[in-house]
Amino acid sequence: MTYDPICTPPEAREIEARRAKAQAAMSDAGLDALVLVNPDNVFYMTNFANFVHERPFVLVLPANGDPVFVMPRLEEPHVRIRSVGTLEFAPYFEFPAPEGEGWDAKLKDVLSGASRVGIEADCPRFVSDTLGTRETVCEIIEDLRAIKSPYEISRHQYACDVMMLGLEELLTQCKPGVLAMTAYGAASSKMTQKMFSDLPTANIFSTDLKAGAQPQKITHDPHNFTDFFIPFTEGGPHVSLAAGRANGYGAEVERTFFLGHVPEAAKRPFDVMMEARALAYALAVPGAIMHDVDAAVNALLRKAGYGDNLLHRTGHGFGVTGHEGPFLAEGDMREIHPGMVFSIEPGIYLPEVGGFRHSDTVLITETGNHNMTPYAETLEELTLPV
Amino acid sequence: MTYDPICTPPEAREIEARRAKAQAAMSDAGLDALVLVNPDNVFYMTNFANFVHERPFVLVLPANGDPVFVMPRLEEPHVRIRSVGTLEFAPYFEFPAPEGEGWDAKLKDVLSGASRVGIEADCPRFVSDTLGTRETVCEIIEDLRAIKSPYEISRHQYACDVMMLGLEELLTQCKPGVLAMTAYGAASSKMTQKMFSDLPTANIFSTDLKAGAQPQKITHDPHNFTDFFIPFTEGGPHVSLAAGRANGYGAEVERTFFLGHVPEAAKRPFDVMMEARALAYALAVPGAIMHDVDAAVNALLRKAGYGDNLLHRTGHGFGVTGHEGPFLAEGDMREIHPGMVFSIEPGIYLPEVGGFRHSDTVLITETGNHNMTPYAETLEELTLPV
Repeated sequence: MTYDPICTPPEAREIEARRAKAQAAMSDAGLDALVLVNPDNVFYMTNFANFVHERPFVLVLPANGDPVFVMPRLEEPHVRIRSVGTLEFAPYFEFPAPEGEGWDAKLKDVLSGASRVGIEADCPRFVSDTLGTRETVCEIIEDLRAIKSPYEISRHQYACDVMMLGLEELLTQCKPGVLAMTAYGAASSKMTQKMFSDLPTANIFSTDLKAGAQPQKITHDPHNFTDFFIPFTEGGPHVSLAAGRANGYGAEVERTFFLGHVPEAAKRPFDVMMEARALAYALAVPGAIMHDVDAAVNALLRKAGYGDNLLHRTGHGFGVTGHEGPFLAEGDMREIHPGMVFSIEPGIYLPEVGGFRHSDTVLITETGNHNMTPYAETLEELTLPV
Repeated sequence: MTYDPICTPPEAREIEARRAKAQAAMSDAGLDALVLVNPDNVFYMTNFANFVHERPFVLVLPANGDPVFVMPRLEEPHVRIRSVGTLEFAPYFEFPAPEGEGWDAKLKDVLSGASRVGIEADCPRFVSDTLGTRETVCEIIEDLRAIKSPYEISRHQYACDVMMLGLEELLTQCKPGVLAMTAYGAASSKMTQKMFSDLPTANIFSTDLKAGAQPQKITHDPHNFTDFFIPFTEGGPHVSLAAGRANGYGAEVERTFFLGHVPEAAKRPFDVMMEARALAYALAVPGAIMHDVDAAVNALLRKAGYGDNLLHRTGHGFGVTGHEGPFLAEGDMREIHPGMVFSIEPGIYLPEVGGFRHSDTVLITETGNHNMTPYAETLEELTLPV
């Protein structure tokens, strides 16, 4: 199964279908309005993304009809350029503003007829405090975002292709003596060039293309990006990654690699990581519980003696961001459904030896799953000549 | 008056002074604990910044003693590398997590003795909802951040110097026929190189160096970044900007400029913008009310006939971000104090002619103000040869 990669904005019917589904869920929950502040949710419902600043952007979805966008007047012309599907505009002049002229007055107007208002779990208090006691936290948009449409899957495939290009460039750059910074610059710029060559009007505010690699010295600490001037050395494990969003859809691909040779101490943890990964692929199928996938993977890793060397769950979701729910994690009791997209990336982190992790962007299909970032993965393929 | 530019992290006593001030304000407000989730507030109180993801980072400042940082165990090693001042660690394994093992259980533990808890105005509901009814919204850290220490002023001066370098490169690149994208790439990369040459361990997660210019065609819509492939043309007004954060401190400098010649229709709005700017400099002094500065500037612009061509307030604050409160805006009734840093950037936006705006990073001094981004500003200086 393959999906054609595309990077073009959604058509109106795609956005309208999302709104209709959200309004159906609102009806089930008895909500008169849904208040969206999270920029990723606003993007999902409108295709509008810009840089977020202290001027509030609040999208109100009513029980019926078009959403109303409370936003700074300053932004209206390019909201009109970017947004897809019909929108009503409720612009305010500035933030802050004299009493009665600001965003909060506009929002109160828009919500004047609503007695039960849904808000997001991450709704900031300064917004929810304006709603009185009408509000109820709900996860309607989060739930919708978890299941991708065919259009969205094609967007993810495009993002995956960009990430694989970045990873390829990165691994070409990584040689003993080369600084992490050098490899980072070349690969990130290649990804950015591809994105804007394919679509000159790509939105930089929903694009975030990163490619980087950790030299062996710090791979045991996977979020350590405190020094980009460490050189790569012969041996390994080094860990490379290309991740982020390409014009609004997320993906990542990460590979543990070696330069010239594989140190003896690295062979077993690499093999165990690959076993854990294979187990995750076998278990991450429709009908499984997310918790169970992670629990089984962690049990395998603990049984192999690496119980003290785990730093994270098996995987996270992708969507209009590169890192979101749902999670292949102990404690996430949700069921896996077709159309979900997860990273599969069990890792082992040994302070003296290094970090071992591959990550891929994986689509859940009707019958199992499909790796959307097929890339070299064996120890042989990933031991690069120096 | 000048401040030596510096880009090095704060010393422990700088961070400890902030904590002591916050604890004094907490005492005045009768708070047992202050819960900080906003990454910029966490950075201000710890010097720690990393990429923010769905795993919560919550800093708890108690009434007395060291802050306690609830955060993913995954992050602990580089929190230790980056943070300044003593911290207690309350790491959790993963998000989500089985009941009783996640971030919320840790936070409840840390707050077990607190009966009155301060939260930020932008505290997300999923955090504030765990606090029961103990919480009260306060602006203690926002108020502290508004007044810069001598150390912070020197950090801002460094950021200003980086931005001026970026602007210089940008204006060198901008010629008729050159695409906005080309100029953007060259200038941004020059700023990044300077930052990491000066301080190889600069934190990329608190660095955000952007330089860009809008060709005349879109300058009437100042936040329009929807097409980077528009070429510059002879004439103008074009609007250039360098803005963001250099290793944790914000600044910006923006200039309206012309290529080859100044169209007749651009002369008066440029002059009026310069008058509005001069008025803002005259009024933005200690003891003035922020509202009054903006109201006077807007009155001048309206009187000159540009009342329908205003899109934003006179200015915003800078600090550990490049865009924050307090604001030189109608409706912001706060008093201006020495140590505040504002942009001064009144603008005029004429759909057929273009946008007119200079912006600078301006320190409020004991006796007036000081432009930290001195750069060419007259029509003659900013009409570039082609």
